[in-house]
Amino acid sequence: MPSRRELANAIRALSMDAVQQANSGHPGAPMGMADIAESLWNGFLRHNPANPHWADRDRFVLSNGHGSMLLYSLLHLSGYALSVEDLKAFRQLGSKTPGHPEYGMTPGVETTTGPLGQGLANAVGMAIAEKTLAAHFNKPGHSIVDHHTYVFLGDGCLMEGISHEVCSLAGTLGLGKLIAFYDDNGISIDGDVEHWFADDTAKRFEAYGWQVLGPLDGHDGDAVAAAIEAARAETARPSLIVCKTIIGFGAPNKQGGHDVHGAPLGKDEVAAARAQLGWEHPPFVVPAELYAGWDARQRGAGQETEWNARFAAYRTVFPALAAEFERRLRGELPKPFAGHAGEFIAAAQTAGESIATRVASQRVLNAFGPQLPELFGGSADLTPSNNTFWKGAKAIRHDDFAGDYINYGVREFGMSAVMNGMALHGGFIPYGGTFLVFSDYARNALRVAALAKIPSIFVYTHDSIGLGEDGPTHQPIEQLASLRVMPGIAVWRPCDAVEAAVAWQAAIERRDGPSVLVFSRQNLPHQARDAATLANVARGGYVLVDCQGSPELILIATGSEIGIAVTAATELSARGVAVRVVSLPCTEVFEAQDAAYRESVLPNDCRRRVVIEAGATAPWYKYVGLDGRVVGLDRFGESAPAGKLFEHFGFTVANVVKVAEELL
Amino acid sequence: MPSRRELANAIRALSMDAVQQANSGHPGAPMGMADIAESLWNGFLRHNPANPHWADRDRFVLSNGHGSMLLYSLLHLSGYALSVEDLKAFRQLGSKTPGHPEYGMTPGVETTTGPLGQGLANAVGMAIAEKTLAAHFNKPGHSIVDHHTYVFLGDGCLMEGISHEVCSLAGTLGLGKLIAFYDDNGISIDGDVEHWFADDTAKRFEAYGWQVLGPLDGHDGDAVAAAIEAARAETARPSLIVCKTIIGFGAPNKQGGHDVHGAPLGKDEVAAARAQLGWEHPPFVVPAELYAGWDARQRGAGQETEWNARFAAYRTVFPALAAEFERRLRGELPKPFAGHAGEFIAAAQTAGESIATRVASQRVLNAFGPQLPELFGGSADLTPSNNTFWKGAKAIRHDDFAGDYINYGVREFGMSAVMNGMALHGGFIPYGGTFLVFSDYARNALRVAALAKIPSIFVYTHDSIGLGEDGPTHQPIEQLASLRVMPGIAVWRPCDAVEAAVAWQAAIERRDGPSVLVFSRQNLPHQARDAATLANVARGGYVLVDCQGSPELILIATGSEIGIAVTAATELSARGVAVRVVSLPCTEVFEAQDAAYRESVLPNDCRRRVVIEAGATAPWYKYVGLDGRVVGLDRFGESAPAGKLFEHFGFTVANVVKVAEELL
Repeated sequence: MPSRRELANAIRALSMDAVQQANSGHPGAPMGMADIAESLWNGFLRHNPANPHWADRDRFVLSNGHGSMLLYSLLHLSGYALSVEDLKAFRQLGSKTPGHPEYGMTPGVETTTGPLGQGLANAVGMAIAEKTLAAHFNKPGHSIVDHHTYVFLGDGCLMEGISHEVCSLAGTLGLGKLIAFYDDNGISIDGDVEHWFADDTAKRFEAYGWQVLGPLDGHDGDAVAAAIEAARAETARPSLIVCKTIIGFGAPNKQGGHDVHGAPLGKDEVAAARAQLGWEHPPFVVPAELYAGWDARQRGAGQETEWNARFAAYRTVFPALAAEFERRLRGELPKPFAGHAGEFIAAAQTAGESIATRVASQRVLNAFGPQLPELFGGSADLTPSNNTFWKGAKAIRHDDFAGDYINYGVREFGMSAVMNGMALHGGFIPYGGTFLVFSDYARNALRVAALAKIPSIFVYTHDSIGLGEDGPTHQPIEQLASLRVMPGIAVWRPCDAVEAAVAWQAAIERRDGPSVLVFSRQNLPHQARDAATLANVARGGYVLVDCQGSPELILIATGSEIGIAVTAATELSARGVAVRVVSLPCTEVFEAQDAAYRESVLPNDCRRRVVIEAGATAPWYKYVGLDGRVVGLDRFGESAPAGKLFEHFGFTVANVVKVAEELL
Repeated sequence: MPSRRELANAIRALSMDAVQQANSGHPGAPMGMADIAESLWNGFLRHNPANPHWADRDRFVLSNGHGSMLLYSLLHLSGYALSVEDLKAFRQLGSKTPGHPEYGMTPGVETTTGPLGQGLANAVGMAIAEKTLAAHFNKPGHSIVDHHTYVFLGDGCLMEGISHEVCSLAGTLGLGKLIAFYDDNGISIDGDVEHWFADDTAKRFEAYGWQVLGPLDGHDGDAVAAAIEAARAETARPSLIVCKTIIGFGAPNKQGGHDVHGAPLGKDEVAAARAQLGWEHPPFVVPAELYAGWDARQRGAGQETEWNARFAAYRTVFPALAAEFERRLRGELPKPFAGHAGEFIAAAQTAGESIATRVASQRVLNAFGPQLPELFGGSADLTPSNNTFWKGAKAIRHDDFAGDYINYGVREFGMSAVMNGMALHGGFIPYGGTFLVFSDYARNALRVAALAKIPSIFVYTHDSIGLGEDGPTHQPIEQLASLRVMPGIAVWRPCDAVEAAVAWQAAIERRDGPSVLVFSRQNLPHQARDAATLANVARGGYVLVDCQGSPELILIATGSEIGIAVTAATELSARGVAVRVVSLPCTEVFEAQDAAYRESVLPNDCRRRVVIEAGATAPWYKYVGLDGRVVGLDRFGESAPAGKLFEHFGFTVANVVKVAEELL
């Protein structure tokens, strides 16, 4: 029977060998955290390598994602479909083992990490999802949702601000099944952290209401195991286990210093580490008895089988709930949803109300919410402004998780990464709100959502200078453009209540990436549409108002500027101009339409084009070219009532008509 | 002699009246913090309303910037050039009293606040600047830099992650002259914060190494004064004074609830508050004895006069240092700088080295650093990768501020807002580095820099898929585009060591806004230039390689793609194509050139244009129109060696030639 240290050394050897082979990567964290990982994975982690999607598995997150070889080693050794050949292809094009863990690329990788602090936030989201899902589904004597979330993190994660946001929230909510392991090695890239990070981290986490265990010797697997026992025994508070470690443990000349963090050890030091660790095997070779010691397949299959039996018993008593649980975990919408949404949209078209799209958004939620128990809302402390709390919503509290809303507090980045974690856990479609301008605070979480194809829904209200008196710090200018250039995000900016409903439906139905829904503070005029036009809204861009014959001028607009464009078109056509108005609520979706449809909306030979949008202009030249015009804003706003600002900055019918006539 | 409370009530009355008149704004914080402000401003704050730019004034920052009427009231009452008419124009177009405090709009406003947490970070930067400037200039017996930084903040600031980043750093650095006042009113927009923010904030700050005073009654001015005394007595640690307050204090029916936070009280409640406060004066009327109690002009003039005498004594003993101090505080560069920079650039052109631009950047720092003691560098824990530490640099430590560099730790957002605070303090040109992709974490601090015209310099290395194996989480794609669409930022992406030096010079010489310098990880080929071409680099865009006669095709590129463009042009011209290569290291600067110059670089009638840049394509259509092509990336990258990635994604000479030929 191999010792804990021998088992852990398999991680060390695979990690240093893979980094050496790739001539690139981070050996320090895997070698430093190997003993902790061995203790957790072999002693506690409930998972089934044969089924990485088992609903009630424990979740494991490597927030210090640069230590990816730690995770790949664990997955390989414990029996996931990740071969030694995959490890040899570490960091090579098309491999299952990219430089940082990427969700969807590797079986068993629960989230994409590397951008520091966000894995921790995802883990908080997963723990919230577990506790909420348990409140939705568990019944006395029937505990079908009951798993832990474990997260590894380093000094970098703890220095990042997002760690404060989400650990404060986790403490407030009392996430007792969240267990974090702090790799307290005293080293970051610039050297000894004492010079820039002198926190008493234990005290900090106690201030958040966490149980803090340790500091303990992170190379003593039994001590780690005892701490995990204590962490699991505490059910009312999340636990932080402070593990003192030596970065690059086992590399005799480099361990404990920052050189071992992010570069190959070099051949000589790899050889010296082999000697130091007593590891006599060639690169990428692990003896059978160590594989046997790591193999989690039988244990995991047994754990899942036991759960399956529990779930079968649950199904017997609660067949409808069991089916609903399975539906939610599959990420399928209720069958009637699309039909209901279509009816709601048609009714909105008929009702013809001229309301703020943030108000329209709340009405959509009032309509869709009761049909979609997986919808899980929230706001970064702007609930009454974002209108994200619908009439049937209920906020979760530390003593009551039977809800579907979080008051996230003023934590935009934390909120967004928590949402990603909830979506990755499964069972939820998270949405969360703030002002559009503060998407800046959360931007990299949106990027991770886009990269990992996570269907989080970001609700951003107060979408332009229409925000008014709060002034330029709160008025988005470049945010629409900067979100649209992010690959894989669908940004919707609806012009009225109808487009708002279509946008919500699209966001909810999207399963392969995030959506951004951008809503106005101020009222917007309803637009008339026939049935064919209404059907085209979902295509992201469509002809809203047309002329007879071929247009000699096209006005393109989004959101609050559609009303201006339509009125300007009326004036222009009264002067005999053949003018078309194109509404482009979502350029990403429009650009994914077939070429014939796009040509039917924006005929290539009509080059007299004007875009009107109260935001940065540069990306719109893709639509108007070198000969068209953009009525936009390439400067910051001003503090004043919204109406005055639209006039001040030229978002008026008169100015649009003037600009258009300059083209004719 | 009016009582403290009567003095404080002048703030309350002005604030509720101004918000009522604007029918918009935030009365809660000004009314809640009025007693604290009265205690600080009348008892301790050293400032001269007649000279808001006095170098050694105390700095005051309202981090909870939505309480702007608190600050405007203080400035008005204490004698700044801010009239009651200005207060009546609160939140109106063109007024000096915008919805949130904006640097440069109002005398005495030290920074732009509103985006929560950043004012606190600016204050940390100001306190670092004070302590560093003191280390640079003070001499035994001659203390010419000796002032405090005071900052007000609320629950929102403390929930934001950036508060963790900068307060951890402030504690580590032991900023003893930083004194923060926490408006602990238990209320945020969503309601009672206990449900989403249950931190033991005192304990949290103790964990950071701060002195924590209170909790005390924030409506007891004497108690506040005693705490300020204790805070000033502690010189080794920053102090947090926890002030329990009632939000909207004085509004009898609304105080203590979230309705008073961000909306006018309404006429009835304003009247009720007048009664409650015993304030019998009409709107905007303050009795003369209260003005007299607030007037800081005489005291402030005396304080500045006393300092002027100290500085005159300093000048007698250290005339050169005194002149240097004045130069640095004026924000003027040393006269020889421009000449030296020009010589360095010319030498780089002659040397012709093909090196990574991040290496070139470090060489620039090695050359410029000794000439510019105001240059103050740093990195968010990527010093050895960003190459931001030049050979003469020295990092400050808690026990030694005689340096010009900070190891910021893994705190991108905190670093950026600290840099802004240092620049606003005066005496420094701050620069700070991270990977380009992690500009996302800091984005809103760049926005505040742009809005407030703060000349911070953001150094971003690893600027494309050229980063290689670390993979898509670390490879910027959309960052260049998203930074360029932000108004007021100059984004430079140099193609070689020469352009890198020009970019640095431009950033250093820019006094009215931030610059972003984007550098490659990998080596880039040197480009040949004659003197005229070299002179044009500073214009942001120029003809790098030209054909005879008018071009029939223009290749436009930046940074690492210039090498590809130049080689492709060679191939194309060998095939008889009249091709021009335009280098566009800074589109913002190029677009600010006169029309004739721009036309000379990009003649309107040449529509066969191809842009090559390893990033998002959309904004580049502004340069190529509907008929040109962009060789770019609208998807995330992959983990692989950089060379393979450039090939994989079509950044090859062969592909550029192919795309170009499709246009011909």
